[in-house]
Amino acid sequence: MAQNIYDNPDFFAGYSQLPRQVDGLEGAPEWPAIRALLPELADRRVADLGCGFGWAARWFRDQGASSVLGFDLSQNMIERARADTDDAGIEYRIADLETLELPEAAFDLVYSALTFHYVWDFERLIRMIHAALAPGGDLVFTIEHPIFMAAAHPHWTLDKDGRKTWPVNGYSLEGERRTDWFAKGVLKYHRTLATTLNTLIGTGFALRRLEEFAPTAEQIAEIPELAEELERPMMMLVSAHKR
Amino acid sequence: MAQNIYDNPDFFAGYSQLPRQVDGLEGAPEWPAIRALLPELADRRVADLGCGFGWAARWFRDQGASSVLGFDLSQNMIERARADTDDAGIEYRIADLETLELPEAAFDLVYSALTFHYVWDFERLIRMIHAALAPGGDLVFTIEHPIFMAAAHPHWTLDKDGRKTWPVNGYSLEGERRTDWFAKGVLKYHRTLATTLNTLIGTGFALRRLEEFAPTAEQIAEIPELAEELERPMMMLVSAHKR
Repeated sequence: MAQNIYDNPDFFAGYSQLPRQVDGLEGAPEWPAIRALLPELADRRVADLGCGFGWAARWFRDQGASSVLGFDLSQNMIERARADTDDAGIEYRIADLETLELPEAAFDLVYSALTFHYVWDFERLIRMIHAALAPGGDLVFTIEHPIFMAAAHPHWTLDKDGRKTWPVNGYSLEGERRTDWFAKGVLKYHRTLATTLNTLIGTGFALRRLEEFAPTAEQIAEIPELAEELERPMMMLVSAHKR
Repeated sequence: MAQNIYDNPDFFAGYSQLPRQVDGLEGAPEWPAIRALLPELADRRVADLGCGFGWAARWFRDQGASSVLGFDLSQNMIERARADTDDAGIEYRIADLETLELPEAAFDLVYSALTFHYVWDFERLIRMIHAALAPGGDLVFTIEHPIFMAAAHPHWTLDKDGRKTWPVNGYSLEGERRTDWFAKGVLKYHRTLATTLNTLIGTGFALRRLEEFAPTAEQIAEIPELAEELERPMMMLVSAHKR
C-alpha cells in the first residue's frame, strides 16, 4: 500500500494551506498547461486518480462531463471533497492506486494530478488504466519531474555566478526517495523520464504530448518567485491516447 | 550554417583520439543500447546524418543495408571516411544539416549519432527527415541529454555527502550553449526533452522508445569511470516511426 501521508495531521494542515488547495485549479500555475492537454469533456466519463479536494472533478462536470469518479487514498481528502461537492454526477471513493481496479472500457478520460510519483508499481497502474479506457480515450497526468526528484539532497544551490542551480544525482537509480515536505520522510518513487514514457508506449498508448512545466512571462510578472521554475522543471505533464 | 568545429585542427586532433573514434562503434558505451533500437537492416536504404569516420555506415552495410548515404559538415571527417571505406554501396557527402534536403521517401532508416545538438533549426530538420523516409521508415538518433547540456557551467560538483552531482539551471531557456571541449566555444543548441519529443510527434512520427543512456553493471565493472553516468544521463536515444 502507498504511504498515506495525507492523513498525517501535520502534513494535512500544511498541505491544506497551499494556494492550489485554497484557491483550487487557478492556484496551480501549471493549470493552463494542463487545460491545453485535455480533450473535449462534454459527455465524457472521467476518472480522477488522486482527486484530493475534488477541485478538478467539479471543473470536469462544469465542462459537461457526464460523470466523474474521484479516488484518493486519504480519508481526509475524500471527506473534504464530499463536503465541498453537491453534484450527483460526482462520486468519491477511498482507494490505493497500488491495487485499484477499474471496470474495463468504462472511461473516456483518466486524469491524475501529482499523484503517480507516490505509486511504486507504475506499470501495473498504467496497464489497468489502459484497460479501463474506452478506445479513443485519453490519459492526461502530471507527475513530479525526475530532474526534480532524482537527487539525494534536492535543494537549490548557487553556481559560481550566483545563479540558482538544481543538483541532479542518482538519476538512473530508480526507486524510493524520501523528502521532508510538511512531514518527515514523505515517500515517493523516482523513475526516469524514459521509464515513464516507455511504460506508456509499451502498454499500447500513443504519446501525444509532453510538457516540462515552465511559467510564462505573464505568470512570472504576477508571481516573481515562479522565475526559479525556469532553471529546472518541477513537474511534467503527459497526454497519451488509447487507439 | 552550423559551426564547423570538427575542421578546427586542435579539435580534430583531440576528437580523433576518443575511444569511439579509435575503436569505432564498440568504443561507444551506448552502442549496445542503440543496436537494440535499430530496425532490421537487410535491404534497407540508410541515411547517416553526421557520419563522422563512417564507422556506422560500414556496419549498416555489414548488416545487409542496400545502400548508405553518409553526410557530415566536416571535410576532415568525410575525407577520412572515404579513405577508410572500400564499398560502392556507401557514399559520403559534405553537407550542413541546417540546409540539407534529401529526396522524398528515399530512405528506410535515417540514423544520426550525437549530431542534432549542433543544429539550430531542429523542426526544419525533422520535417525534412520525415519527408525523406518511406512510409514505415524509422528515425533512430542519439543526442546530448538536455540535463547534461542545460547549465551555464556544466561540470561535476559534490553534494554534502561527497557524491558526484550534476548542476542544472536554465533548463527551460532553450538556445545556444558554448562549452570548451577540445577547443574553446564549441557551439551547441539546448532544447528541452519535451521540445525534442513534441517536434517528432507534431511532425507525424510515432515515438517508439526513449533511452536515457546508463551503463550496465558489466560495463562499469570493465570501465569503472562509467559509474558516474548513473548520476545523470549524458545522452538520450530516440526511436521514432513514420506510419
